[in-house]
Amino acid sequence: MKLADLPTPSLLLDLDRVERNCAAMSERARRLGVSLRPHLKTAKSADVAWLATRGQPGGLTVSTLAEIEYFGRQGFTDLSYAVGIAAHKLEALAELQRRLGLTLTLLADHADTVAEVAQRAAQLDTPFALLIEVDCGGGRGGVAPEGPELLALAQAIRASSHLRLQGVLTHAGQSYAVPGREAIAAVAEAERAAAGLAASRLRAAGFEVPVVSVGATPTAVHAQQLAGVTEMRPGVYTLFDLDQVALGVCGLEDIAASVLASVIGHNPRSQRVLIDAGALALSKDLSANGFAEGDEVGYGLVCPMDGRAPLAGLRVAEVHQEHGFIASRSGDAEALFRLLPIGARVRILPNHVCMTAAPYPHYEVLRGGSTETIARWPKAGGWSCTDGRTA
Amino acid sequence: MKLADLPTPSLLLDLDRVERNCAAMSERARRLGVSLRPHLKTAKSADVAWLATRGQPGGLTVSTLAEIEYFGRQGFTDLSYAVGIAAHKLEALAELQRRLGLTLTLLADHADTVAEVAQRAAQLDTPFALLIEVDCGGGRGGVAPEGPELLALAQAIRASSHLRLQGVLTHAGQSYAVPGREAIAAVAEAERAAAGLAASRLRAAGFEVPVVSVGATPTAVHAQQLAGVTEMRPGVYTLFDLDQVALGVCGLEDIAASVLASVIGHNPRSQRVLIDAGALALSKDLSANGFAEGDEVGYGLVCPMDGRAPLAGLRVAEVHQEHGFIASRSGDAEALFRLLPIGARVRILPNHVCMTAAPYPHYEVLRGGSTETIARWPKAGGWSCTDGRTA
Repeated sequence: MKLADLPTPSLLLDLDRVERNCAAMSERARRLGVSLRPHLKTAKSADVAWLATRGQPGGLTVSTLAEIEYFGRQGFTDLSYAVGIAAHKLEALAELQRRLGLTLTLLADHADTVAEVAQRAAQLDTPFALLIEVDCGGGRGGVAPEGPELLALAQAIRASSHLRLQGVLTHAGQSYAVPGREAIAAVAEAERAAAGLAASRLRAAGFEVPVVSVGATPTAVHAQQLAGVTEMRPGVYTLFDLDQVALGVCGLEDIAASVLASVIGHNPRSQRVLIDAGALALSKDLSANGFAEGDEVGYGLVCPMDGRAPLAGLRVAEVHQEHGFIASRSGDAEALFRLLPIGARVRILPNHVCMTAAPYPHYEVLRGGSTETIARWPKAGGWSCTDGRTA
Repeated sequence: MKLADLPTPSLLLDLDRVERNCAAMSERARRLGVSLRPHLKTAKSADVAWLATRGQPGGLTVSTLAEIEYFGRQGFTDLSYAVGIAAHKLEALAELQRRLGLTLTLLADHADTVAEVAQRAAQLDTPFALLIEVDCGGGRGGVAPEGPELLALAQAIRASSHLRLQGVLTHAGQSYAVPGREAIAAVAEAERAAAGLAASRLRAAGFEVPVVSVGATPTAVHAQQLAGVTEMRPGVYTLFDLDQVALGVCGLEDIAASVLASVIGHNPRSQRVLIDAGALALSKDLSANGFAEGDEVGYGLVCPMDGRAPLAGLRVAEVHQEHGFIASRSGDAEALFRLLPIGARVRILPNHVCMTAAPYPHYEVLRGGSTETIARWPKAGGWSCTDGRTA
């Protein structure tokens, strides 16, 4: 289908870029000597998952029960659910594991969680593999790698007849706060060291630790070495976004996802072009502005419909529910209105593609430079197994 | 179903509050002498729409083709699509109008739009009613009520055999930027005056103007009089949110929607409680902090599972894709962890309910004070007629 005939807003996927991004990360994992277990919370697409796992031994990382059901149905049976488990989810997970023949690995970082998970797993008479989450400095989830909780958790897992300790996992979320190759490489080393320390302490205490998992796209890209690590779990790299550009992790030409929008108005008073992609279609994420002077990219940069480089000086300056407003830095509204006449179509590059892509039910897929789609790829969405889109 | 047994995150709806909010706005419209055409972009639910329209002569306002199809299938045939029309959408709209027996009213504010809409309507041999959008000071969509474009647009509509001028529409988006009854009442008067001026000028030029439409929840609540107006289109009032509380438009006890979440971790290093509702489940909207000192409500306030008033001093201070972090102003992490133990459930009140509710496929409905649901109400979602949830 021609881009000029698609409904707007639509979510576009440049297949050339996805293939390149996936190949580059696979090669990076191979060079670093670790498995790649890509996080599909970003793309939420089995088609992207096949590209991301080609030639890799590992499974996938996911973030919701809806994703577990969706990817499980698509034939991905080795899934790590990388959000701290809530014990009440075990009944649904046990059912999914049975019905779809899955091997699920869950995440825990608190003694109460392990106790309740052990109890429910026994009630359900269902085995689960557990990773212990380690905090490598981000202050999100995880126990301190040097603290006493780590060994206590491992002992509690070993004491359960239905739980199996699979290893340790950490996520350097703080890598999103430090731009530049060197700073991110330092975070990557801290991430590696934290996971490695936790694994060493467990092994010294007699535990087997088959999995030592790290991962975030910035650290996966800029890590110098991953000695002691067995797998990494980046996700954003499959599609990339303006925040990753701002962090120095990729270039604009690597961003594979964009939102196709139509020009629906010109406002001379506010000197803005109105498009039919607003806060829901683009998200309200402003992350890529964090390292810029002022409001550099707003809610997204504006590319021509054929996907060439962003139009200089333009950004989505404001969003409301279904309206976006494109402003020009030059302040020449007449030139802006001539450049983007009523009915024109643009592609908006997202700040944070995990947020922007989530609400769309599918990707409209095309090759780089083309304005004609070649496929429509479905996506997972929502949270629970009953959320419909995955049913 | 008990709230303790629902999947998390889930979107809850307090039916007592929705009924009260809807009854109060119906009464307000009656007192002001205007029809109420509620904007269902907020609730996206036919069940809420029936409550909102009970006893009212008007139809609904909607913001996407997906909503048109969803509400059309649910028996709502009089729909105003209050986002500036893009002419390429006419084919799908004509099909919906025919198939579902709808009367659609569209919105335009540019000569090029009207010209292209007239041409496509003729090609499709399908009639459409049009409202001319007027800018009452917000600088979003709309022509100036005192400018020459207004009459030119009306003439262009009259010149088309397939278009019918239905009237004028304005939206005081700027009412979200001025807290307090008096300031909002002033905006409401500007909104009324702009719509009234546009209608008068059109009538003086010989046009019939059956509809003079204003609306935003803040102005609908605080308008002193609406002489000359025929209908108002508020939407947020059906559910209300923390932003409306901050604006002085409602109280905390009027907020009808909340997100049920589970405690999945305690982080002593960052002194935060982790929940399984993050940036996708709550949205990244921070609007309600705009009028507060600093980060007053963060990404939402934290209520106990039974829906009583927010827990003092707590807020969702940070969100990532599927993680939310509750922080306490007191800084006493041990007290916070005792208050919200692992596995506990909370309800998060949203900053901006239009953003928070959008991604959920349904509401879990309950009566005030109860912790047991009585119904599950489906919702529209996505944008196009092929987005699935409405199919």
